[in-house]
Amino acid sequence: MVRISIDVMGGDYGPSEVIPALALVIKGRPDVSFLLFGDENQINQHLIKYKDLGKCSKVFHTEKTIKSNDKPSSALRASKGTSMRMAIEAVKNGEAEAIVSAGNTGALMALAKIVLKTVPGIHRPALASVMPNVNGDVIMLDLGANVLVDAENLVQFAVLGSIFARAHKKIERPSVGLLNIGSEDIKGPDHVRAAGEILARIDFPGDYKGFVEGNDITNGNIDVIVSDGYAGNIALKTLEGVGQLMKHYCKESFSSNLLATIGGFFAYFALKCLGRRMDPRLYNGGVFLGLNGLCIKSHGGADALGFSTAVIMAVRISRQGYIQQVARDISHLTDQENFLSQSA
Amino acid sequence: MVRISIDVMGGDYGPSEVIPALALVIKGRPDVSFLLFGDENQINQHLIKYKDLGKCSKVFHTEKTIKSNDKPSSALRASKGTSMRMAIEAVKNGEAEAIVSAGNTGALMALAKIVLKTVPGIHRPALASVMPNVNGDVIMLDLGANVLVDAENLVQFAVLGSIFARAHKKIERPSVGLLNIGSEDIKGPDHVRAAGEILARIDFPGDYKGFVEGNDITNGNIDVIVSDGYAGNIALKTLEGVGQLMKHYCKESFSSNLLATIGGFFAYFALKCLGRRMDPRLYNGGVFLGLNGLCIKSHGGADALGFSTAVIMAVRISRQGYIQQVARDISHLTDQENFLSQSA
Repeated sequence: MVRISIDVMGGDYGPSEVIPALALVIKGRPDVSFLLFGDENQINQHLIKYKDLGKCSKVFHTEKTIKSNDKPSSALRASKGTSMRMAIEAVKNGEAEAIVSAGNTGALMALAKIVLKTVPGIHRPALASVMPNVNGDVIMLDLGANVLVDAENLVQFAVLGSIFARAHKKIERPSVGLLNIGSEDIKGPDHVRAAGEILARIDFPGDYKGFVEGNDITNGNIDVIVSDGYAGNIALKTLEGVGQLMKHYCKESFSSNLLATIGGFFAYFALKCLGRRMDPRLYNGGVFLGLNGLCIKSHGGADALGFSTAVIMAVRISRQGYIQQVARDISHLTDQENFLSQSA
Repeated sequence: MVRISIDVMGGDYGPSEVIPALALVIKGRPDVSFLLFGDENQINQHLIKYKDLGKCSKVFHTEKTIKSNDKPSSALRASKGTSMRMAIEAVKNGEAEAIVSAGNTGALMALAKIVLKTVPGIHRPALASVMPNVNGDVIMLDLGANVLVDAENLVQFAVLGSIFARAHKKIERPSVGLLNIGSEDIKGPDHVRAAGEILARIDFPGDYKGFVEGNDITNGNIDVIVSDGYAGNIALKTLEGVGQLMKHYCKESFSSNLLATIGGFFAYFALKCLGRRMDPRLYNGGVFLGLNGLCIKSHGGADALGFSTAVIMAVRISRQGYIQQVARDISHLTDQENFLSQSA
């Protein structure tokens, strides 16, 4: 059995999209059950429509919710009894394997860090995601949880990303690149250049390939792309935006004249397949790496299909025990090889 | 007549792509002529194949070339007599309206700044480009010429971008956004937040709309997007990469089975139109704003079609007198309204 704890009140839509999302998740997954944290009345209003989901869900009423525009620091102070905090505590207490929330990213990171704690040796958790590329997928981190970072943080992100990639992509030494504005050593901001120097010199679970650029995210040459949360979030959102633009171009191209429209009719299945591959909802979900527990962040604007992708990510990672592996590998590195002090 | 000065030796390919590019440019543009700076032998080897181009080109032999991996500071010291510097000097001396180079971005920016000088009141030139979006296009700056900037630099970029957008998009008060990782005031790095506070308070030629995110680059809601060169370059390269990924997806989707292939056959013209819209070569070319002269940077890896786009950009901007307008408007702002000191 995999039990997932859900912050039902998080995100732009709350229960109206979260509950249908969970109904999608349990189709074909009889081993999954949910702990639902949020306003009981609102949850039940939607839950009543999904009989099977009701059977494998347990509702925990909460009065309070963290808003998406609350400052993380003040959200933290008033977090007791909120759906987000209680959902995270369920993981801490061993009642659930993972927690999924579409709520305030900063607050989720701060709370997860306080409640679950980071793996010894890791200073800050990083928000990672699996993005599509030409050869399959690439792991990117950080995606916005850590705006300002130093070289050591970036080095730790590279380690966390490598271990995650090893489990996710089943390769012994995943290739790792630092996101920058050019591949030459002299390019970019100080913290990125300093991290590059450290990664080139130390022994860690990944294979450091130097600086990579924005187009390397999708070209399939690299397994793990490491950046601060500022650059990473901008790259991630840019990716999402271009997907929308391409969809727009497709629609325009296939309705530009009668011949194109007829072509589109014949190409219906190919276009449908293309649309699915470009759908950002099928790549929704970021995982906080470096915590003693699994915490998944869904996009705040995710609809039912999008949120279900994030929950399925939680189920998959729980089943495969990635988080335990990260914790083990990091503690091995920090204990046995005095690894992280090399980067200080 | 529009005379364009060309650094023929710049970029990954030099004369072998630059000369065919110029041959493309003069088709249907009898008022365009070129000053070609570079190795005479190499240039003539290619120029001989294009009779019409030869007639409207004048070759200036140079012995030295700035390499793409030279440090800007050392490139600068050894710049005398290089194809890049001599091409820029032709603009300074009034022999050409604009200079186009696919060479080392940092060196081009440094040399252009030293030779052409910035408009009074502007501290650093910004590299701007016109990118496609859902409603037409958006102006983005800086794209990598200024990695580290302060709030005042960002404010000046917003002013430069607004004036350029007014001329390019023919709108009186273009909307301006600051690229960040969220729309709330509390988000992002210090220099971006500080620039946001200044832009919200001062009177400038654009209409400040607050923070925008990566997906706003393509969604068509904003006319000018301002960022430091670190975030801007990463966003730009990410955009390029996604274009390639989408092309890959299209190919895969339309060859996944017989039905899809037949569909693709019928959809040939629509797909061709789609391919054209997604071709990054048709958006190649960045302009350094804030200089007393027009300097255009082509992508280093541009082929003939890509380089021709950058040269056509130079021709178009020269004809319309944008640069003179920027210089006029900025001097008007600095003189009459003591504008830039407000942001200090």
